[in-house]
Amino acid sequence: MPTRGFIEYQDASPAVKAVYDDIMTVRQTDYINNFWKALAADPATLRRTWESVKEVMAPGQLDPLTKEMIYLAVSASNQCGYCIASHTAAARKAGMSDAQFSEIMAVVGMANETNRLVSGYQVEIDDRFKA
Amino acid sequence: MPTRGFIEYQDASPAVKAVYDDIMTVRQTDYINNFWKALAADPATLRRTWESVKEVMAPGQLDPLTKEMIYLAVSASNQCGYCIASHTAAARKAGMSDAQFSEIMAVVGMANETNRLVSGYQVEIDDRFKA
Amino acid sequence: MPTRGFIEYQDASPAVKAVYDDIMTVRQTDYINNFWKALAADPATLRRTWESVKEVMAPGQLDPLTKEMIYLAVSASNQCGYCIASHTAAARKAGMSDAQFSEIMAVVGMANETNRLVSGYQVEIDDRFKA
Amino acid sequence: MPTRGFIEYQDASPAVKAVYDDIMTVRQTDYINNFWKALAADPATLRRTWESVKEVMAPGQLDPLTKEMIYLAVSASNQCGYCIASHTAAARKAGMSDAQFSEIMAVVGMANETNRLVSGYQVEIDDRFKA
Amino acid sequence: MPTRGFIEYQDASPAVKAVYDDIMTVRQTDYINNFWKALAADPATLRRTWESVKEVMAPGQLDPLTKEMIYLAVSASNQCGYCIASHTAAARKAGMSDAQFSEIMAVVGMANETNRLVSGYQVEIDDRFKA
Amino acid sequence: MPTRGFIEYQDASPAVKAVYDDIMTVRQTDYINNFWKALAADPATLRRTWESVKEVMAPGQLDPLTKEMIYLAVSASNQCGYCIASHTAAARKAGMSDAQFSEIMAVVGMANETNRLVSGYQVEIDDRFKA
Repeated sequence: MPTRGFIEYQDASPAVKAVYDDIMTVRQTDYINNFWKALAADPATLRRTWESVKEVMAPGQLDPLTKEMIYLAVSASNQCGYCIASHTAAARKAGMSDAQFSEIMAVVGMANETNRLVSGYQVEIDDRFKA
Repeated sequence: MPTRGFIEYQDASPAVKAVYDDIMTVRQTDYINNFWKALAADPATLRRTWESVKEVMAPGQLDPLTKEMIYLAVSASNQCGYCIASHTAAARKAGMSDAQFSEIMAVVGMANETNRLVSGYQVEIDDRFKA
Repeated sequence: MPTRGFIEYQDASPAVKAVYDDIMTVRQTDYINNFWKALAADPATLRRTWESVKEVMAPGQLDPLTKEMIYLAVSASNQCGYCIASHTAAARKAGMSDAQFSEIMAVVGMANETNRLVSGYQVEIDDRFKA
Repeated sequence: MPTRGFIEYQDASPAVKAVYDDIMTVRQTDYINNFWKALAADPATLRRTWESVKEVMAPGQLDPLTKEMIYLAVSASNQCGYCIASHTAAARKAGMSDAQFSEIMAVVGMANETNRLVSGYQVEIDDRFKA
Repeated sequence: MPTRGFIEYQDASPAVKAVYDDIMTVRQTDYINNFWKALAADPATLRRTWESVKEVMAPGQLDPLTKEMIYLAVSASNQCGYCIASHTAAARKAGMSDAQFSEIMAVVGMANETNRLVSGYQVEIDDRFKA
Repeated sequence: MPTRGFIEYQDASPAVKAVYDDIMTVRQTDYINNFWKALAADPATLRRTWESVKEVMAPGQLDPLTKEMIYLAVSASNQCGYCIASHTAAARKAGMSDAQFSEIMAVVGMANETNRLVSGYQVEIDDRFKA
């Protein structure tokens, strides 16, 4: 947080250390990235956010790479610089190739274009698309 | 378009009919959805948009289902009602299960949450995430 | 506003009536659209918003049609249904043709696409574009 | 503005100086931040924007701190870096604590998550929530 | 979810019923709104989202009304129709007056305006606002 | 793209060179800006995006300056830093004056403000604005 900066492992409270430890275990890394170090200013939000991310990104009916690519696609659509950088790294670690990166970006761009064409032309939902 | 409405196949110019025909061939359907009928008010944009969508959504390093799921994820993140309805239908047609739909939405929600936490806490990009 | 609904001319306070009168005079119409009738729940915001819109949309170095087209373009990009409908009507009243409408939407779509490609690819600003 | 840069007090026209003076008086500061110095390239917009901000942010049924926290929350949701930095500073000056900052961000994050879940699941408005 | 619709209490699994029960207890109501009935298609996301909302919206350094007003402000900024309707209702239940509603909307509008002026003029962060 | 960086003319494949040559011819410049050099990591997207931009931005019922101003307005509304910088430069090259820049930004700001007021107040579309 602006006035306090990042909280490093050695300076962390037991509650924060427990989250850092779990992040490192689940992600099989010894690196805690800046997002978590910033969130550590609010241990409750740190814990809740990590638990949610861990649950949402775990393998399910979608494999981890697909989930990472979707996370990256949404972050690119939202134009969040940090998120794009960190989730590009995460997706690469999960196996995303250069060509896959480019295809994701092409879909993100096209979706953003057609979303606005739909809105501008005030297109009504087809009956067959109604739930 | 507001003052002209949708252009049906039988009322379409040859240029518009050619696009409609290609859509039906590529998508193996006899149905043209409202988006294209609205865009037909501007044949150049109809053609350009269709050619782009066709190229972007063709099988590549990502399979068609993955591309459709990313398209849906971005549309949900952008809160475009028509796009969510039509791409949910398209993704289901491509094989998306109920459970996969739910997992996509969970990732979209989480990405939107953490994107704002990153921005609000003014998190700087880790050196290792820099290109 | 939800719990009070629109305020019609005959039910309006003198302060609200004064704004309604000015809207009708400046726009050369006898119709007050729903946006203003809703804002009338808060006379200070009604007055401030109208005075600002009147000043911003007055002829300047850009003619009224160009300003209306920019207003519509931004509203389409923001996917605001009411705003798209009302500003499409306003732009048409100011002289926008069907072809101009379509060209605006094409630019809005393209800008939204390239904005995300720029972000996703983390493109750095060229030195020559720096102020 | 890009090609002209910030306008400092000593270089300002009387119209711009009058706004700067009012900002310093109302905010009880001798500092004009970059936003106003950039807007000064357009004295009409500088004046209109300042008058609007002054009116909107004045104490009313909501106290100044609550208004600043809402301004910050919206800026964080919009991911506007400058706005987050300047309104975090303004909210702190108005009394926001570290814990309040963290709670605001938690709400902003959660709202952004649930807004997309609502859209993605195409949830219809409950009758009892209709105005 | 589109193909399954809302899950009513009597049709819910024990896991979903447990969440519904907790919502009704915490909110002191016998009404489950459509958002939760739609999310119930994915019990894990239903539970996680409710637990997160419950934790984030609990009284803390900000009182429940202030948190509801911030939630509403972000939803209005994001233009999420369902969220605006449901959180306007929630904020009113927590004590929001008509005048407070109007002041929130005025701040939301102004923040969205100045966020874009800042971006368009490419305003750099003042040194004193840097963390 | 992050891991490969920009592709310069001398290092480009024939397909990429052909696009670069066309950009320089159409824009009457010998400068390729970073956006295209980044997109060159994906020659198909480079070509498709350039062909689309060229078609959309060509003179039509709207003159090139008006199109550039709309592109800039949307980019400012979307808060895309690179896009604002590059399209401010492009619009200036096409003839945009300082005063026109300021008027565009004023419209962008006002549209963003009223778009949210409309949403927050849940304003229904006037019958006369319906298509």
